[in-house]
Amino acid sequence: MKIAIITLDAFNELDSFVAMAIFGRVRLDGWTVQICCPTETVTSMNGVKIFAQQPLSYANDADIVLFGSGMKTAEYANNPDFLNTFSLDPSWQLIGSQCSGALILQQLDLLKSAVSTDTMTAPSLIEKGLIISEQPLHVTGNVATAGGCLASHYLAAWAIARKTDWQTAEDIIHYIAPVGQKDEFARRANATVQPHLP
Amino acid sequence: MKIAIITLDAFNELDSFVAMAIFGRVRLDGWTVQICCPTETVTSMNGVKIFAQQPLSYANDADIVLFGSGMKTAEYANNPDFLNTFSLDPSWQLIGSQCSGALILQQLDLLKSAVSTDTMTAPSLIEKGLIISEQPLHVTGNVATAGGCLASHYLAAWAIARKTDWQTAEDIIHYIAPVGQKDEFARRANATVQPHLP
Repeated sequence: MKIAIITLDAFNELDSFVAMAIFGRVRLDGWTVQICCPTETVTSMNGVKIFAQQPLSYANDADIVLFGSGMKTAEYANNPDFLNTFSLDPSWQLIGSQCSGALILQQLDLLKSAVSTDTMTAPSLIEKGLIISEQPLHVTGNVATAGGCLASHYLAAWAIARKTDWQTAEDIIHYIAPVGQKDEFARRANATVQPHLP
Repeated sequence: MKIAIITLDAFNELDSFVAMAIFGRVRLDGWTVQICCPTETVTSMNGVKIFAQQPLSYANDADIVLFGSGMKTAEYANNPDFLNTFSLDPSWQLIGSQCSGALILQQLDLLKSAVSTDTMTAPSLIEKGLIISEQPLHVTGNVATAGGCLASHYLAAWAIARKTDWQTAEDIIHYIAPVGQKDEFARRANATVQPHLP
């Protein structure tokens, strides 16, 4: 199970790292999560410089591909060279976006009708003819979009549940949830994600 | 307002980056959040290599100092050279820890009686004579401890509220919360953090 988290320059730390940390807790043979970047290093919106673990092309063979958001996502979404790096196929890959990552999914022609995103990104997607969901997670087939940074834990839980089972995802949510509120977080994740599972 | 997030080798991405991203949304003049590391680069528990923004000593002049957790926190907490880097003063600094970061606060003699931490770290702190809180956030004066990775948003909200007001913290929680659940997240953060504000 190869998981690619697309992390671009000026990235939002929450979007890339909440998902990564959750996937990192799947203790099953062969699960690998990798931060994939357009350059050898990228710098976050708050100035943290990180090394790529893989190039963007890693996503083309990955079982799960998530696009994080950031300050320059719109710029990337309008860059043909960047878009041409990807050859994704939702018939066998699970593909997701967090907040402004949806701009890239839209340009890759992966979005139909509705999308979950943040309020800053919503107007651009409405212009493209999409309907904005009022829910933190929207799923159509193998493509999921999430809105609001902390919805990243739902996006990761959805992908894990799709590839294993709900219990595996819920156990991880339980583990990372605040002490004293673990059942509450697990219940809310269940209520949010379960309706989107087959 | 200088904020230091202590980020050590084998760090937990959630603990350092959730707090950082939240502090990064305080749009007030002079607020600066910096990832502080013992070496020029450190690698996360899931293999992401990042550059330090500041050395550990930055924490000694910082207004807010948070210790993240990770796979090697216990090792660091038992390293006298590492501990001697710090000269922290809770009479004017806000100091906090996330999960196993509490092991370092304990060694720096900053913890009294009770502590919030994760279930893996709890036994070591009980051995040191501390009582484990059942709450995600425990505060004594200017020292706060948080347990469960996602409690990091309460820890950051507490520090922001202490230095500004609750509304500033709540607005940020509202912004980063999942779409459709923003009021619920803000209410729970309020219920969790407000009792610890003066």
